[in-house]
Amino acid sequence: MRHLLNPLDLSMDELDNILNLANDIKENPTKYAHKCDGKRLATLFYEPSTRTRLSFESAMLNLGGTVIGFSSAENSSASKGESVADTIRVVSCYADICAMRHPKEGAPKVASMFSGIPVINAGDGGHQHPTQTLTDLFTIRTLKGHTDNMTIGLCGDLKFGRTVHSLIESLVRYENVKFVLISPPELRVPSYIRDEVLKGFEFKEVTNLDDVLPELDILYMTRVQKERFFNEEDYIRMKDCYILTKEKMDLAKDDMLVLHPLPRVNEISVEVDNDPRAAYFKQVQFGVYVRMALILTLLGLAPEKI
Amino acid sequence: MRHLLNPLDLSMDELDNILNLANDIKENPTKYAHKCDGKRLATLFYEPSTRTRLSFESAMLNLGGTVIGFSSAENSSASKGESVADTIRVVSCYADICAMRHPKEGAPKVASMFSGIPVINAGDGGHQHPTQTLTDLFTIRTLKGHTDNMTIGLCGDLKFGRTVHSLIESLVRYENVKFVLISPPELRVPSYIRDEVLKGFEFKEVTNLDDVLPELDILYMTRVQKERFFNEEDYIRMKDCYILTKEKMDLAKDDMLVLHPLPRVNEISVEVDNDPRAAYFKQVQFGVYVRMALILTLLGLAPEKI
Amino acid sequence: MRHLLNPLDLSMDELDNILNLANDIKENPTKYAHKCDGKRLATLFYEPSTRTRLSFESAMLNLGGTVIGFSSAENSSASKGESVADTIRVVSCYADICAMRHPKEGAPKVASMFSGIPVINAGDGGHQHPTQTLTDLFTIRTLKGHTDNMTIGLCGDLKFGRTVHSLIESLVRYENVKFVLISPPELRVPSYIRDEVLKGFEFKEVTNLDDVLPELDILYMTRVQKERFFNEEDYIRMKDCYILTKEKMDLAKDDMLVLHPLPRVNEISVEVDNDPRAAYFKQVQFGVYVRMALILTLLGLAPEKI
Repeated sequence: MRHLLNPLDLSMDELDNILNLANDIKENPTKYAHKCDGKRLATLFYEPSTRTRLSFESAMLNLGGTVIGFSSAENSSASKGESVADTIRVVSCYADICAMRHPKEGAPKVASMFSGIPVINAGDGGHQHPTQTLTDLFTIRTLKGHTDNMTIGLCGDLKFGRTVHSLIESLVRYENVKFVLISPPELRVPSYIRDEVLKGFEFKEVTNLDDVLPELDILYMTRVQKERFFNEEDYIRMKDCYILTKEKMDLAKDDMLVLHPLPRVNEISVEVDNDPRAAYFKQVQFGVYVRMALILTLLGLAPEKI
Repeated sequence: MRHLLNPLDLSMDELDNILNLANDIKENPTKYAHKCDGKRLATLFYEPSTRTRLSFESAMLNLGGTVIGFSSAENSSASKGESVADTIRVVSCYADICAMRHPKEGAPKVASMFSGIPVINAGDGGHQHPTQTLTDLFTIRTLKGHTDNMTIGLCGDLKFGRTVHSLIESLVRYENVKFVLISPPELRVPSYIRDEVLKGFEFKEVTNLDDVLPELDILYMTRVQKERFFNEEDYIRMKDCYILTKEKMDLAKDDMLVLHPLPRVNEISVEVDNDPRAAYFKQVQFGVYVRMALILTLLGLAPEKI
Repeated sequence: MRHLLNPLDLSMDELDNILNLANDIKENPTKYAHKCDGKRLATLFYEPSTRTRLSFESAMLNLGGTVIGFSSAENSSASKGESVADTIRVVSCYADICAMRHPKEGAPKVASMFSGIPVINAGDGGHQHPTQTLTDLFTIRTLKGHTDNMTIGLCGDLKFGRTVHSLIESLVRYENVKFVLISPPELRVPSYIRDEVLKGFEFKEVTNLDDVLPELDILYMTRVQKERFFNEEDYIRMKDCYILTKEKMDLAKDDMLVLHPLPRVNEISVEVDNDPRAAYFKQVQFGVYVRMALILTLLGLAPEKI
C-alpha cells in the first residue's frame, strides 16, 4: 500500500506517471467518470481548508466515488481525546482512501503507520502539502510545456511558506532550473533550503521584486502576513514591494506565468486577474485533475501506460 | 449564463415555466431522477441555515447530481481573508451550479459577477431569499389553484422580514391581490414597500390580527422577535396578538391557508399544526420541487415545454 | 412505520433477523450495493460524534443511497430556537430515514412522534445508543459463535456508561450469561440495573480487574474519566486498575475477547492492539454491517428470510 506524505516520496517515474495521467484526465474527463464507482474517500480535516477539501471531494466525485468526512477538529472524535492512530484505524473501516489535513507536523505520517487504507497528506502544519506541489508542477508543465530550463521567482514569505519549500525541493530534480528568491530579509528561506536543498544549484536571494521580474519565466507569489514582521515600520516600508500590480506586470516577459497557492489576500491586485499570464485560477482547476490522478494511482486503478 | 439573485430577475413567463416545471416534478418525480447525473451543486453557506441548505442538497440529489460545500463561515476560506469573488472562481472549478447564503447583502450579486457557474442567492442578509419566494408562490398556486384574485394577510415582523418584502413585490405582479399588513406599529413594512411597491394597489395596515382574519384567503405568519421591540412593555402588551392559536383559527375562512417560512418559534401554536388549513410543512416539501425546477432551469436542462 | 429508540424495542426474533442480515451483508457485501438506490439518510447530529456519524453515512453509501445532514447543533436550525418536532417534520420532506444524536435524553423519542420517516436513535445523552448495542451483540455472536453461555466482564465507569447499561439489558435476554461488574465503588452500576435488570441473574461486583480476568469470556472495557471521581487521591490510587495492559492480558483466557465502544483514551494500552483477542477495531467494521441491516429493515427493504 502506498501513501503520499511528501512529494519526494515519489520517484521521478512515478511523478511523471501521475502528471501524465492528470493530463489524460484533463483531455478526456468522461473516460474517468466511473473509475471509482463503489470507492470512498474520507476527508479528515483537523483544521478547515475549504479549497483543499472541496478539491479532493470534487476529484473523488468526478471519478464516480463517494465521500465522507469532517471539516474541522471540533466535529471530530479528536475533541474526545482520540489519537490519530485510532481515528485512522476506524476510518479504514469506512473508506478506501483518505486525505488528512492536520495542524501538527507528522500527523499524516503517524496515520499512515496505522492505516488500512492509503493516506494522502493534505497539509500538515508548516511541513508539507504534497498535492499543492504536484499541482504546481502540473500547472507549469501544462502551461509552459516543460518543467526544466527555466528561471522561477518565488516571492513573499519564503520562511514559513511550506508550498515554497516543497516546490523548491521538487524543482531541483529537473534540469537547469534557476531560482530567484524574493523576500524581506526577515522572511528568507530557512537555512536548510539555502545550504542543503539548493546547494550546487543556481539561485540568488533578493529583496526587490521589480529588479528581477524581467528575467523570470515563472513568478510564484505567496502572502506576506503582517504578523510575520519584526516591527510595524519594516512592514509598512516593505509591504508594497510584494504586491503584484499591473505596473509590475509590465516589467515581466510576455510569457511569464504567475502562480499562487491561494487563498490570496492582497498580494496580487485583482486587476492582474485578467492578464493572460495570471495562471492561479487555472491552477485550481488543474489541482482537481492532479488529485484525481493521485487517487486512481494510490487505489491501484491507474492504467499501466497512458 | 443565468443567475437567480432576486425573484424579480425572472420575467412572468420564466417564473411560470419554473412553477410549471416544479408541478411536473411534484407529479412525476421519478421522471427527473437522473436529469442531473454528473452535475454538481456547491452549497456555500457563510451562515448556517439547515433547512435551506438541506432543501438545496435534497433537490440536487433527487435529480441524480452530487453535492459539495460548507455549512458555516468558520469552515470556509473566508476565515483566511479570501474574497467572495475569489471563492466563487475557485468553486467554479469544482461545481456546475452554486447556492450561496451570506450575511452581507449583495454578496451573491458580487459572486455572480465573477462566477463561471450559475449562482442562486440562498439568502443575503435582510435583502433577498428568492427561492423562499418561489416556494411561497408555488404553495399558493398549488393549494389555492391560482395566485390572483385573493386577499393575503402578512402578519408579524413586517419591517425586517425579507421574505415578506419579496413576497409582496412578487404578488403585485398578479391580478387583483389585496394586502392586509398586520404588525405592531414599530414593525410596519418599510416606507419603500408602502409608498412604492404597493402604490396603486389595494392594501391596509392594521395592528390586530383577529379583526381581519375573517377576510383573508392566505395568512402568511412570521416571527416577532422580542429584541425588535423598543421596550419590554410594548412587547408584553402586543406579543399575544401575533400568536396564531386554535381560537383565532375559528375566526378564519374554511379554506384560508396558513403559510410560514419557518423556523417557527411560538408564533403558531402547535395545536394549529393538525388544522387542514396549516400549510407550512407542505411548503417545505414544495420548496424541494421548486429548487429542483430552478436547478434544471439554470443548468439549461429544463424541457422547452412542459 | 418502525423506529429504533431502544434496543429492547426489538423482539428477539426481530433482533435475530437484523443480526442475520448483518451477517449476510458481511459475507456478501456486493449483493447489497444497490438496495438503497434512490433512498436518502439524514444524519441529524446535535452533538458531534464522528465515529457514529461516519458509520451511519458509510452504511447508507454502501447500500447505494445518499446522505444529507449536519454534524453539530451550531450548524442546525436548533440555534434559531426550532423544536426537534419541527425539525423532524422538515427533514421528513428531505430524506427517507434519519439517525439522530442529541444531548437530551428522549429527543429521538419526541422526534419519532412527529416524524414521517423512521428515526434511529444514534445516542441520546446518557440514555441509549441502540446501534452500539446491536454492534456489541453482533461482534460477540460473530467472533464467539454464540451470545449465550458465557461470562462477560464489564469494566470501568459502570455508572454513567450508557453502552454498558444497554448491553446488560440486552444480554439478560440470552441463556446463561454471567456478569462480572468491575469498577471503583463510586462508579458502580446504578441501582436499577443491580436491583431490577440483573435480579435473578448471576452477577458479582468487584473493584479489581486482575482478580477476575481469568474467568472472563468477554471483557468489555470503558473509559474511567478523572472528573467522575470524588477526589484526586481515589483517582490516583485506582486508575491503573482499570487500564488493560499486556501483563493483564496474560491473566486472561486464550479466547477471551476485548471489546470497547471507542473512542479509547488510555484505558487499553496500545500494546494490546496487536493481541488477537483485541476485537475493538473489528467492532467498528461490524458496526457498519449492523447499521446497513438496520437501515434496510426500517425501510422495509430487508429480505423476508435470509
